[in-house]
Amino acid sequence: MKEPLRIGIAGLGTVGGGLVRLLTENEDHIAARCGRRIQINGISARDRHKDRGFWPGRFEWFEDARELAQSDLIDVLVELIGGENVAAQVVEKALESGKHVVTANKALIAAQGARLAALAEKWNLALNFEAAAAGGIPIVKALREGLAGNIITRVVGILNGTCNYILTQMEETGRPFADVLAEAQDLGYAEKPDPTLDTGGFDTAHKLAILASLAFGTAPDAAGVYVQGIDRISPVDISFAAEFGHRIKLLGIAAVTARGVEARVHPTMVPLGTPLADVMGVLNGVVTESSAAGVSVLEGRGAGAGPTASAVVSDLIDIARGLRIPAFGIPTASLVVPERANLGEREGTFYLRFNVLDRPGVLATIASCLADQAVSIESMIQRGRAPDEKVSIVIITHEAREAAVIAAMKAVEAAGAVVEPPCMIRMERL
Amino acid sequence: MKEPLRIGIAGLGTVGGGLVRLLTENEDHIAARCGRRIQINGISARDRHKDRGFWPGRFEWFEDARELAQSDLIDVLVELIGGENVAAQVVEKALESGKHVVTANKALIAAQGARLAALAEKWNLALNFEAAAAGGIPIVKALREGLAGNIITRVVGILNGTCNYILTQMEETGRPFADVLAEAQDLGYAEKPDPTLDTGGFDTAHKLAILASLAFGTAPDAAGVYVQGIDRISPVDISFAAEFGHRIKLLGIAAVTARGVEARVHPTMVPLGTPLADVMGVLNGVVTESSAAGVSVLEGRGAGAGPTASAVVSDLIDIARGLRIPAFGIPTASLVVPERANLGEREGTFYLRFNVLDRPGVLATIASCLADQAVSIESMIQRGRAPDEKVSIVIITHEAREAAVIAAMKAVEAAGAVVEPPCMIRMERL
Repeated sequence: MKEPLRIGIAGLGTVGGGLVRLLTENEDHIAARCGRRIQINGISARDRHKDRGFWPGRFEWFEDARELAQSDLIDVLVELIGGENVAAQVVEKALESGKHVVTANKALIAAQGARLAALAEKWNLALNFEAAAAGGIPIVKALREGLAGNIITRVVGILNGTCNYILTQMEETGRPFADVLAEAQDLGYAEKPDPTLDTGGFDTAHKLAILASLAFGTAPDAAGVYVQGIDRISPVDISFAAEFGHRIKLLGIAAVTARGVEARVHPTMVPLGTPLADVMGVLNGVVTESSAAGVSVLEGRGAGAGPTASAVVSDLIDIARGLRIPAFGIPTASLVVPERANLGEREGTFYLRFNVLDRPGVLATIASCLADQAVSIESMIQRGRAPDEKVSIVIITHEAREAAVIAAMKAVEAAGAVVEPPCMIRMERL
Repeated sequence: MKEPLRIGIAGLGTVGGGLVRLLTENEDHIAARCGRRIQINGISARDRHKDRGFWPGRFEWFEDARELAQSDLIDVLVELIGGENVAAQVVEKALESGKHVVTANKALIAAQGARLAALAEKWNLALNFEAAAAGGIPIVKALREGLAGNIITRVVGILNGTCNYILTQMEETGRPFADVLAEAQDLGYAEKPDPTLDTGGFDTAHKLAILASLAFGTAPDAAGVYVQGIDRISPVDISFAAEFGHRIKLLGIAAVTARGVEARVHPTMVPLGTPLADVMGVLNGVVTESSAAGVSVLEGRGAGAGPTASAVVSDLIDIARGLRIPAFGIPTASLVVPERANLGEREGTFYLRFNVLDRPGVLATIASCLADQAVSIESMIQRGRAPDEKVSIVIITHEAREAAVIAAMKAVEAAGAVVEPPCMIRMERL
């Protein structure tokens, strides 16, 4: 058997702990697959004395992760610190010291991936990040290797388990967002005190930027992703969606279009019975559209100690087996900066809900504002008929330009026809 | 850029033609991903003069695929001949001549995979077969690499598009098997004149043997797979399944159990709403259960020129990138011969249909035959109540031993209680 692959782990939170356990429990199994052992030689974390269910004293302890990154004791640095600043320094130090890097850090790869990949390339090192998107699903490998012969034109995913859990709970219990969020925070499914990285759609945007880069051969462009979270989704919309045979999901959607690369994260109505509509609870799912393979669907657990550690270990096994693939599948010099598509020009169908007072002329106002923008109506529901009661007018549009729909909504609001800002949810056929 | 990777293609049917097209159309795209070109240098097929939509004269023509396999013009032999005999000779010649091999041949890998993998290993060559199971889904890569850190305990799949198409059509139109099969043959979805490789479950068994080997680290054991096809499925059972909230699918199921490795292919009732129940038409789907990643689901097109060529190209790209992984993920010396589980000892739930004449005492006979074998009833439907009419008695059992259920069915038959052999369909929670 060859020399062991010696690794250092920076960050011992949920994932780091899961990684130590997985490498320990499946030591022989993993060695058989690598033709060599994967050996933890160094560890760094904030608190040396925290009880983690294993004895960190078995491993060399480093107070500073940057020192671990440069240590002669390791061949690979596993970065599980999270965040952008320290993590970036640690990854750089590791690469500059000739260490391969495995990271689960989506924010880092989405923002600085191209630069770090160029650094890895310069020293012929691996920079692997399977765990950065949908851990239990080998989607990075599928895009970078399994579908590499295809022109991939579209990647659509449910990439954040917290949001999917909240939406599933809202649907199943009829309770409002704030309520379900508070419960999810108590259960540890959502961050406390500030859950907006997840619920605001930003975590999904990081992952989408990475997947789009792998799929399209473009530099990761987190800043180019349109982001809208789930915090304004109301139970009313969830139940209207069901009436129209749809379900609301927070999707990350990236596509190559004639107008450039489209990348957007927003609540989306998807038809029941399509693959992503059935991905419930904390699960993740990704749909890809490729020129030769057609539509492929991958579904599984996205986060948590087990799935994320599984992804990190697969990256380590690749390195142990001697696999070197450019981080984004092609040399960084070939990564093109994507031309961003103007979302306003996008054609799609839309769900619109106007809360109005049931007075004569209100529907006429809404209809004429839509007509002025050449937005035509496919179907309509009006609900709540008692006099002076607030009434919901819900409209599904035919195919329309997004900018026109938004202009029509503004016109309705300006005309004083609504008692609260109208709600618009994009619809997507998958 | 490095030297091109020079390949020879043996077999120019649907897949071979698709491969030539894909390599030609996406030439630059693929070169960017490999850091070198993939260049077709030689071709062999039965009929040189058949019109294939491209000019085979561009490539060196070999009358005998075995000569192509040994030619100095190539680094990789792509075997798309199919069948076991000639294909095995061609693959052996290639490996013995120091050529990597990529094959889409499930029958060959299922039957002779361990021997050929040992040959590849001896000369440090790649033997890749992503296209041998579910082409549009990178499942071989997922098992061999993506989930390699996990102990995988179960693989369940819809692996034959022809059978899934026939079952889908039977459900949607209510027509009998023979009818739908004849139509599928006319449409080119099923083989003519003999469709039994598909409909008899044997193709699924080949693929299952390969996936089980990759998942469990066992030598492929096609002969150890229990196989039952879909030819005896009747529209009656499909509609009863729906009444119980289920759907009938031809599944390949492989699992590590306390009784050994279980590998079986048979029509199966799966609950609606579970991932494989929703895989319709010609699509394939695979569910894996692993120790750390949990349940993962992959779905996509299984066969056809595009998806299969896509899988072959991903194998070629791996070779071009310098990736060498043992064919089954571990050295062949470590592949253990699986201990086969006795299916009779398996515990499961069962759908049983007895066609009887509606005479007094019939139900009592059935009930007592089941009771004698300690098979208890979860629910029952009796249908067809006119006097002297044939009546269907349908029973869903509680958890029971398979051998006991079969013995009970035989006893019912021996007691003369039925007008035709009883029908038994295994149920599976996924």
